[in-house]
Amino acid sequence: MSNNIIWHHHPVDQSVRAKMKAQKPVVIWFTGLSASGKSTLAGALEQILTIQGYHTYLLDGDNVRHGLCGDLGFSDEDRQENIRRVGEVARLMADSGLIVMAAFISPFKADRRIVRNILPEGQFLEVFVDASLDICKSRDPKGLYKKAVQGEIKHFTGIDSPYEAPENPELTINTGKFNIHESVNMLLDFLHDHDVLKAGFEKVSETHKVI
Amino acid sequence: MSNNIIWHHHPVDQSVRAKMKAQKPVVIWFTGLSASGKSTLAGALEQILTIQGYHTYLLDGDNVRHGLCGDLGFSDEDRQENIRRVGEVARLMADSGLIVMAAFISPFKADRRIVRNILPEGQFLEVFVDASLDICKSRDPKGLYKKAVQGEIKHFTGIDSPYEAPENPELTINTGKFNIHESVNMLLDFLHDHDVLKAGFEKVSETHKVI
Repeated sequence: MSNNIIWHHHPVDQSVRAKMKAQKPVVIWFTGLSASGKSTLAGALEQILTIQGYHTYLLDGDNVRHGLCGDLGFSDEDRQENIRRVGEVARLMADSGLIVMAAFISPFKADRRIVRNILPEGQFLEVFVDASLDICKSRDPKGLYKKAVQGEIKHFTGIDSPYEAPENPELTINTGKFNIHESVNMLLDFLHDHDVLKAGFEKVSETHKVI
Repeated sequence: MSNNIIWHHHPVDQSVRAKMKAQKPVVIWFTGLSASGKSTLAGALEQILTIQGYHTYLLDGDNVRHGLCGDLGFSDEDRQENIRRVGEVARLMADSGLIVMAAFISPFKADRRIVRNILPEGQFLEVFVDASLDICKSRDPKGLYKKAVQGEIKHFTGIDSPYEAPENPELTINTGKFNIHESVNMLLDFLHDHDVLKAGFEKVSETHKVI
C-alpha cells in the first residue's frame, strides 16, 4: 500500500511539501527605498501567481510590524533584528513548500546576506527594486519623505539612514522606467528562468487592472 | 475571462489561499510537559495528513530554537517571548492557508491565550498532551529530567518551573493511557469534528510504523 510506504520512509520535509504543491519553493526578496514599488510589485506578482495555481505568501511590513516585530523600532539594531526575524519566517515558509515574497526596505547588505545564507542554495532570489531617491521622494504616497526631510521621522532610509544597494542581485527592476505590467512580466520571465514557473505560464496585459 | 475577474476583485487573502488548498486553515497547538509526546504526536499527525493530501507545517523547538528564537533562553520572560513569536509565525502560516501544528511545552496559560486571541475565531485548537510528571520523568528520552533534578538544568518545567495545565482545551490526550496509533486516531476524529478533515479520511492502523 502506497500510504504505508510514505509513512515508513518519508518524514515530511521540504521536498515532500513542495512536491504536493507541484512547485519549487523560493524566497523572492524585494529590496529598495521606501516608495520604490516593492509591495506593489510583490502584491501584483502574488496575484498573478495565485491565479495560475501557485501556492504563495507575501511577507511585508503590514503583516509583521504589528505582530512578530511589534517590539522593534527603526534604529539600525532594530532594523537588523527585524530583517533577521523576517528572514527566519521566510525560511520556515519556504520549508513549508511555499513561494514566498518578502517586501522590505532591508537597507543593509549584511542583513540580506544573512537571509540568503540561511536558505538552501538557490532558494533566495534578490530583486532590487531600483528607483532613484528623487523619484521616490516625488511619489511619497504616505508623505513619509516630507516628514523625514522636516525631521519629524528619524532614521529614514535615504534621508538620515543609508541604503546599501545590492551589488549582484538576481534581478534589478527600474520602476522609474517600467510600468507595473512590464515589471510583473519581467518578474514572470525571471521566475521561469529560475525554474520556478513552468512553461506555459501566462503574462499580464495592460488590460489587467492591478489592485 | 475568469483570470481577469480574480485579478480585479480578489486580493490574495486567507480565504483564497485556503480555497486553493481545499482545506480549512487552523493552528493545532500541542501543549504539555517535556516528554509528554507533543512532537511525536504532531509529527505523526503531519505524516498522516500529508499522505491524505493536506498542506501542513510543523513548528517545534527543532526549527525555531536555533533560528527565529535563537536569541532566547529559558527564563520566564524568554519563554513568553518564544511563545509570542511562534504564535505570530503560526498566525502567518495559517494566513497562508496551511494546517499548522505547533508543539511547544508553552507552560503558561496567559501566553497560550495570547496566541488564541491573535488567530481568527475557531482557528486555534488547543490540544493538551497529558501525561503525569512521573510518567514523563520515567520516559526522559533525552536525560533532561535527570539533569534538572540534579540542578544541572535550571528553569525546567515541572521541576523548578511551573506548568499551568489548560482548563478548557479543545482536546486532551492522555499519552500514558493511549498508544501513538490510538492517539493519532483521536486527533483525526477531533479534526473531522472541527471541519478540518473531510468525510472519508483514513485512520491509521497498528501496522503503520510511525517514524
